[in-house]
Amino acid sequence: MKDMQNQPDGRQIDIDQVGIRDIVYPVTVKDRSKGSQSTVATISMSVNLPHHFKGTHMSRFVEVLNKHRDNISTTSIREILTDMQKSLNADEAHLEMSFKYFIEKKAPVSGQSALMDYDCTFKSALCGDKKDLVMTIHVPVLALCPCSKEISAYGAHNQRSIVSISVRTSSLVWIEELIEYAEGAASSPIYALLKREDEKYVTEKSYENPAFVEDIVRNATEMLDKDERIIWFEVSSTNMESIHNHNAWAVIRRDKRSMS
Amino acid sequence: MKDMQNQPDGRQIDIDQVGIRDIVYPVTVKDRSKGSQSTVATISMSVNLPHHFKGTHMSRFVEVLNKHRDNISTTSIREILTDMQKSLNADEAHLEMSFKYFIEKKAPVSGQSALMDYDCTFKSALCGDKKDLVMTIHVPVLALCPCSKEISAYGAHNQRSIVSISVRTSSLVWIEELIEYAEGAASSPIYALLKREDEKYVTEKSYENPAFVEDIVRNATEMLDKDERIIWFEVSSTNMESIHNHNAWAVIRRDKRSMS
Amino acid sequence: MKDMQNQPDGRQIDIDQVGIRDIVYPVTVKDRSKGSQSTVATISMSVNLPHHFKGTHMSRFVEVLNKHRDNISTTSIREILTDMQKSLNADEAHLEMSFKYFIEKKAPVSGQSALMDYDCTFKSALCGDKKDLVMTIHVPVLALCPCSKEISAYGAHNQRSIVSISVRTSSLVWIEELIEYAEGAASSPIYALLKREDEKYVTEKSYENPAFVEDIVRNATEMLDKDERIIWFEVSSTNMESIHNHNAWAVIRRDKRSMS
Amino acid sequence: MKDMQNQPDGRQIDIDQVGIRDIVYPVTVKDRSKGSQSTVATISMSVNLPHHFKGTHMSRFVEVLNKHRDNISTTSIREILTDMQKSLNADEAHLEMSFKYFIEKKAPVSGQSALMDYDCTFKSALCGDKKDLVMTIHVPVLALCPCSKEISAYGAHNQRSIVSISVRTSSLVWIEELIEYAEGAASSPIYALLKREDEKYVTEKSYENPAFVEDIVRNATEMLDKDERIIWFEVSSTNMESIHNHNAWAVIRRDKRSMS
Repeated sequence: MKDMQNQPDGRQIDIDQVGIRDIVYPVTVKDRSKGSQSTVATISMSVNLPHHFKGTHMSRFVEVLNKHRDNISTTSIREILTDMQKSLNADEAHLEMSFKYFIEKKAPVSGQSALMDYDCTFKSALCGDKKDLVMTIHVPVLALCPCSKEISAYGAHNQRSIVSISVRTSSLVWIEELIEYAEGAASSPIYALLKREDEKYVTEKSYENPAFVEDIVRNATEMLDKDERIIWFEVSSTNMESIHNHNAWAVIRRDKRSMS
Repeated sequence: MKDMQNQPDGRQIDIDQVGIRDIVYPVTVKDRSKGSQSTVATISMSVNLPHHFKGTHMSRFVEVLNKHRDNISTTSIREILTDMQKSLNADEAHLEMSFKYFIEKKAPVSGQSALMDYDCTFKSALCGDKKDLVMTIHVPVLALCPCSKEISAYGAHNQRSIVSISVRTSSLVWIEELIEYAEGAASSPIYALLKREDEKYVTEKSYENPAFVEDIVRNATEMLDKDERIIWFEVSSTNMESIHNHNAWAVIRRDKRSMS
Repeated sequence: MKDMQNQPDGRQIDIDQVGIRDIVYPVTVKDRSKGSQSTVATISMSVNLPHHFKGTHMSRFVEVLNKHRDNISTTSIREILTDMQKSLNADEAHLEMSFKYFIEKKAPVSGQSALMDYDCTFKSALCGDKKDLVMTIHVPVLALCPCSKEISAYGAHNQRSIVSISVRTSSLVWIEELIEYAEGAASSPIYALLKREDEKYVTEKSYENPAFVEDIVRNATEMLDKDERIIWFEVSSTNMESIHNHNAWAVIRRDKRSMS
Repeated sequence: MKDMQNQPDGRQIDIDQVGIRDIVYPVTVKDRSKGSQSTVATISMSVNLPHHFKGTHMSRFVEVLNKHRDNISTTSIREILTDMQKSLNADEAHLEMSFKYFIEKKAPVSGQSALMDYDCTFKSALCGDKKDLVMTIHVPVLALCPCSKEISAYGAHNQRSIVSISVRTSSLVWIEELIEYAEGAASSPIYALLKREDEKYVTEKSYENPAFVEDIVRNATEMLDKDERIIWFEVSSTNMESIHNHNAWAVIRRDKRSMS
């Protein structure tokens, strides 16, 4: 059978990235407290394609994914990308994976525990032997409006917000550490399981810690600035306003590498 | 060219519904205050297919839709369904359309106005000459937790909730009337545009009207029960809890036709 | 602290279902070939609430879920529902869970294997001691249009389709068996990993087996009709037409219990 | 009432962007053939916030949007951004809007017409008086696999694909022109309404024009390269493979401004 993909192409046009998208696969991800956890990821894999080739070999992406799926971490990603370069005979390899990450979390007063889910994404590339990795975590939190508290005789509108932190790092930073930064920046963390005494605690704590969407990203920036392992970050907060049918949003981006 | 769809089929199996789904089309919908409004709908259309036919003629659904798209209302739906029956030579026709519906809404104190968006669905069928129509509206509101208010020294968690009301009616009920029922059942309506004096009003009003997800569906049920034009309803509330990453939910269904 | 939920309610309105929705949790599901598999589920849990109670106790749903998450199957669901009845002091309990289910699948010629993902849903209820369970599986397949093949000089449009089968059964039916029915009803199964010889096989096989959306649901109905363990079913096919930006769709529903 | 947002903030942290997201609004968009069309947009609006201010005034975004909603075009966007700068007293304003755009399209043989829907996005910014605008259009097309055609005795797998073209331009380029580029790059355009003679035409045309995902982006690149009004572009194709449950994807990005 003719290998159509290996035919020459005369248009003199390099392709930046070509590959597969939105393949759903079970994966095992490294975990600070238990060593590893099983989850499900949505994955995109691609390579560059020089102008003289007509097409890439799509099935090889799945072969590489299948081989590595039981050992996914920020450190093992280099091996996967290297395997993609070899298998597809390419200079550049790109891998993006989004997955639910679960953490056992104790309620603040009763101590009862249940699992909280977080959306996590690894976006990585290997160009020659130069690796880039952006880790992103989306953390649901509680945000209570300082303006509403200040101007109202009682109460204050509050809502579920998503604090999203993306980082490039010079050494290992755990997903769990980024979650702590995000939660510390908001009016209160939120939980999967709260008994009445916990609900009282969270309600009062959030009322004592009002935070605009602007405050949340500034609070997080102060923490991310101080952490020397983090060399680049973007932090945003999306507040699902309880008084509107749209969201409030703010973002701060910072590249420490260009700031000395 | 052979008409494959008109070929006989020997399997003796009637098909309940066959047609097109998820076609997106601009439509003009009847509106209480302005006469009509332009919006965009996602539409499914289908008919039954007797066992002796191999297939239906899909292009005819689009022809019927194209003809009627400028005049969509709960009353004009019968014409569309009748056209589908004729054009596709079928006993039963089904039409389902979901669209954004906009209402100009004044802020409660400043009186400033802006448009609020609501998700609306018409689900209709014509079997012979017997018509069925379920109208559904999803109304975002504010829900403030009575438990949190009661047990906390100050504050109370609150959140955006979606109150969904579906009705079958014996005579015309406006979308706007269902929205009023939904908003009246919650701690407070919500708005696209609020100035500071409005935010104070909404904050205090919701604190004075705490409502569990259970209260919201019971409050709505009292109103829907009293409205004699409504002969069947389902009302649910989905609260996007600000203290959890999951939602609280309740539903009440009632068929007045079987309750006398 | 006052137990607000246990307060009396004077409105005389029973609530059909109240509980939590869209909680995301890692679960372990029974698997025909390996015994069990780890996946991630989106879950709704609810109970009925008699008119004299003001509210339900939402945290108990999470406690029950947390207890059972490592052992999910069509048989263990009764235990979960029974626990919900007890924990929430309710007559009726409802549990709905949707999850990705993975099957190792060999390519038809090369024999190379990779994992295919399927969307699966269990929708269950226990009313008193009467259990109801509907299992649904969504199976991506290939559908090649018989009309396009017949009228064209060469080629035929084809597309990815989703065959959805829901069943109530009198005894155990594996998810894997429903997948085989769905794949057998279409022009060809589809795969996560295909080498060139496999692609040739799938292309030719689908060209030899053209099937309208109507044919797919009729083919599946013949199989589901014959399987005596299945006492109720609904089968639909949604074809993501390659010549349109909308989908073709057909559905057949059958209750064998009412057909003797 | 105290203006909390205008309070000073001592953290010395500028905010890159703050504003509202995911507000849904009816808008009127400029249209090549009819002058204008009504549609529904999902909109994000934001400004920068200097470090010395505590918060921005969210309601003003809605006021600006409400004022301009009846006149949206690539040229009128500058006015909206300027109004945002003034109203919010900011140096930088950002506006992003995504909407369905409809074009009346005739079937290739029968000439019957119906509306096709396209997803369109304008992403714009005004920094001082320097405007940036990226227009993106997502065009569904038909892609037929050259490899499958070459190696198979008959037939060839084909599928719906989405060709996405983003451009920065030095002068007006119509959405309609980008749609023509995208359709010209694929195996065949697709349509909302096709009669049998049209279906034969599309089937045969696509079989005569096989195109890998790589070919589609290269074909489009050749056209976009030649159009001198376009100074920057990104073109991608996402093929919803009919033989897999995942997508094939390729992208080419080119900045002509940096290539002389």
